[in-house]
Amino acid sequence: MPAVSPITYPARTERWSMTEIRLEGPAYGNPFLEQSVSAVFRCKQQQVEVSGFYDGDGIYLVRFMPAFQETYSFTITTSFSAPLEGAFLVTPPAEGNHGMVRVAHTWHLAYEDGTPYYSVGTTCYVWPWQDDATIAQTLDTLAHSAFNKIRFCVFPKHYDYNLREPRSYPYEGTPMDSSVLTSENFHRYTGKTEGNQWDFTRFQPAHFRHLDHCVEALLRLGMEADLILFHPYDRWGFSSMRREEDLLYVRYMTARYAAYRNVWWSLANEYDLLPAKNLADWEAIADAICQSDPYRHLRSIHNCVHFYDYSRPWVTHCSIQRQDLYKSGELVETWRENYRKPVVLDEICYEGDIQHGWGNISGQELLRRFWEATVRGGYAGHGETFLHHDGVLWWSHGGRLYGECPPRLRFLHTILEQTPGIGLRPYHASWDEVCAVPEDLTCQGAYFLYYYGFMRPSFRDFALDESSRYEVHVLDTWEMTDTCAGIYSGKFRVKLPAKPYMAIQIKRISAP
Amino acid sequence: MPAVSPITYPARTERWSMTEIRLEGPAYGNPFLEQSVSAVFRCKQQQVEVSGFYDGDGIYLVRFMPAFQETYSFTITTSFSAPLEGAFLVTPPAEGNHGMVRVAHTWHLAYEDGTPYYSVGTTCYVWPWQDDATIAQTLDTLAHSAFNKIRFCVFPKHYDYNLREPRSYPYEGTPMDSSVLTSENFHRYTGKTEGNQWDFTRFQPAHFRHLDHCVEALLRLGMEADLILFHPYDRWGFSSMRREEDLLYVRYMTARYAAYRNVWWSLANEYDLLPAKNLADWEAIADAICQSDPYRHLRSIHNCVHFYDYSRPWVTHCSIQRQDLYKSGELVETWRENYRKPVVLDEICYEGDIQHGWGNISGQELLRRFWEATVRGGYAGHGETFLHHDGVLWWSHGGRLYGECPPRLRFLHTILEQTPGIGLRPYHASWDEVCAVPEDLTCQGAYFLYYYGFMRPSFRDFALDESSRYEVHVLDTWEMTDTCAGIYSGKFRVKLPAKPYMAIQIKRISAP
Repeated sequence: MPAVSPITYPARTERWSMTEIRLEGPAYGNPFLEQSVSAVFRCKQQQVEVSGFYDGDGIYLVRFMPAFQETYSFTITTSFSAPLEGAFLVTPPAEGNHGMVRVAHTWHLAYEDGTPYYSVGTTCYVWPWQDDATIAQTLDTLAHSAFNKIRFCVFPKHYDYNLREPRSYPYEGTPMDSSVLTSENFHRYTGKTEGNQWDFTRFQPAHFRHLDHCVEALLRLGMEADLILFHPYDRWGFSSMRREEDLLYVRYMTARYAAYRNVWWSLANEYDLLPAKNLADWEAIADAICQSDPYRHLRSIHNCVHFYDYSRPWVTHCSIQRQDLYKSGELVETWRENYRKPVVLDEICYEGDIQHGWGNISGQELLRRFWEATVRGGYAGHGETFLHHDGVLWWSHGGRLYGECPPRLRFLHTILEQTPGIGLRPYHASWDEVCAVPEDLTCQGAYFLYYYGFMRPSFRDFALDESSRYEVHVLDTWEMTDTCAGIYSGKFRVKLPAKPYMAIQIKRISAP
Repeated sequence: MPAVSPITYPARTERWSMTEIRLEGPAYGNPFLEQSVSAVFRCKQQQVEVSGFYDGDGIYLVRFMPAFQETYSFTITTSFSAPLEGAFLVTPPAEGNHGMVRVAHTWHLAYEDGTPYYSVGTTCYVWPWQDDATIAQTLDTLAHSAFNKIRFCVFPKHYDYNLREPRSYPYEGTPMDSSVLTSENFHRYTGKTEGNQWDFTRFQPAHFRHLDHCVEALLRLGMEADLILFHPYDRWGFSSMRREEDLLYVRYMTARYAAYRNVWWSLANEYDLLPAKNLADWEAIADAICQSDPYRHLRSIHNCVHFYDYSRPWVTHCSIQRQDLYKSGELVETWRENYRKPVVLDEICYEGDIQHGWGNISGQELLRRFWEATVRGGYAGHGETFLHHDGVLWWSHGGRLYGECPPRLRFLHTILEQTPGIGLRPYHASWDEVCAVPEDLTCQGAYFLYYYGFMRPSFRDFALDESSRYEVHVLDTWEMTDTCAGIYSGKFRVKLPAKPYMAIQIKRISAP
């Protein structure tokens, strides 16, 4: 056994923050395969075992996220040195650090400190793989948005409007010649491996170091990073690696990213479009994640046509692409009942004007779908696909937003934050309205959120408890106005402006 | 047997026109029950037996619609005179007289002379029972509209926004005191019979003479009269008569109205809301119509929640109220396959702003539903429910239209009239468009009508036959513009303005 390797680590670290221990080791051979690093972290309340990973240039990293405000000690075991030990103090979380997002009340999500998390996601599949200027613009756009989750890919993307080479590759090797590609012929190269030369046992640390920075930048913005591990928009062969290559990659990802509190694992985007994978492959990948992620980050898998079986125990929440051209959020109740897990509609068509039906609805229609999902106790996701001369489409590249929906999502989030307890559940009121009430059993009768969608009533009549008093607000979800309509008891009528996209919010202010 | 009664009838009559023979007879007792009049009409090609009816004041009428341009002779048999005979000449139909509407090509409708009938219906439930000025305004509105069918009731209507007494009653007697009714309490009186005194064996001829004038006025406008025989919005007991009273009424209706070529029989509106009737009652009523209508006018029955079994042999076409809050025209394909009959969506929500979800959608949404139904090979119906200080709502009273949808229905009808052959059928193109092609087998490949609904593509690509030439039109169904986008063959791209409610019409102008 060689001598003790020098290690570097912080003496103090923040609760729920990524805490990194750096050590030096061999750079010869293939360290990804031939060397191993693992660590055990201990405090009074917990003992956690994690894997380290090779970061290139003879550097090995061990990353850990402490759950308790205590002194932790650790022991690192490597294939190239004697055991290494150390200790550090965990300090209170800084403002805005609420810990990981976890499932709460069956159908909802909350941060580890109990703060409700009302998911308002967006999708920019390969924003990390654009040039620095576009990345900076994406982060600036996100900083000024209501989004608190973003879906994106670890691997580069091969698809219409996105045929350029990425800024880096996850593996050592050389890609096929992409100069032959056009928006007409690119389908022919989808899923093909010819012309690529990769070593799937040698990761390119630069690719992942850059991804680290992206995940960290999102963390600073308070955004969850819904990492898509596999996807079918591929001309490099990353969607058709062998089982052991997939698992090597997945374990590298968990070793590298599980210590970031804002990471979610999305096993795939449109898993059902990867011809090289079957259900056993996905289950093996899920198993590897469960085994190697000691923090149990949120896990799901996203469909194109066919839902994955979201009732599988490893699936923490549904990550749904709507299956129907007309209904999306309207079906949340069915999925809540079917799966008894949080229902996240990550893809319900994007605001835009491209040729495809999944990317050309209006801001009104996208916002309506968000509200339909919301008042049924689910969560929706945003995307944007406007054609521009610069060829930068938010859904793929990030950049800036042009649509009308995003500002209205902040209003929606503001309303969601007024929910007593955690989360909304559908409440069967009249056939021609959708009504949400608190999921929390302790808040029954305290709050009602009615939504009328494309309907335009001039008024609505209510019959609530006669011995309680209710403050009634008329919400224009499109104009983003919140108007108090008065204090009522028992039977009362609320006037509305006969416009679409109206909601009525009723808060009980006194009970008998 | 008494002496021959004097009879009056025209020496010449127009093909497919209501031809009336008037005779005098006893006015004593109850002529509706105690007297009978029937007639046999004969020409070279047909022999038709019809019933006459009592019209009050000792007058009996026999009505007949000749199908052939020939000399017809007739023999009338009565309970009060010796047989009566006569003959008349049938002249060619005047312009605009195309005969009755019948089912054509399984899923469509055509006039008796072969002219396609593209149904664009509206609903004004009790327009005939309003004051003269409102009736005149309704007819004027219809005359300037694209509507070619209107649904309305023979009996008066008791429902919110329509609690006033009708101008007349179908039976002799006295109604309940309606001064007690308010828009809050009217539900309590629905279906009740207390306070009413009617003789269900004595029709009020004045009520029906007025209805004759209304049906005739519609006929002059080229409009089909979709007569609703029963409905549940009732405080007079007309919805809960006994079986023999129902059948007496139905036979009076067929004797009186079957000779009008523009009459359709709608057994009921929202049949499933009449608690006093069961399926056996509806089947008995249908049977009576089939037996007593020698011309076989179109027959259907309209649902509230539950569809009637439209596969029943007496049902000529589906008369559907949509069952889903979100989907209506989108389901036409299913119903076409289920029933293999014309699918007429008589109720898919109304443009308006009342409190009820069935009466407060936008003109855009109503038009979208029309087009969704149309391009799937079905037909939709219009209604309008705007609140006005005068309390006149088109859906109930007629009057004038305020909405944005009606002018756009003329554009839709103009496009429908361009269909080669008779009618459209759905054609499975891409998942994110709806495409219609001619139902006519002889017109395959000659015509394509694509519709994009709420989607807003900037362009769409097509791949048609390379050796044919196609004229392509871009239709803005909302702005009512029809722009020729050029002549194409094989693969081509059509640019669109990235707006909702667009359609692309492709007409083959030459084939190899």
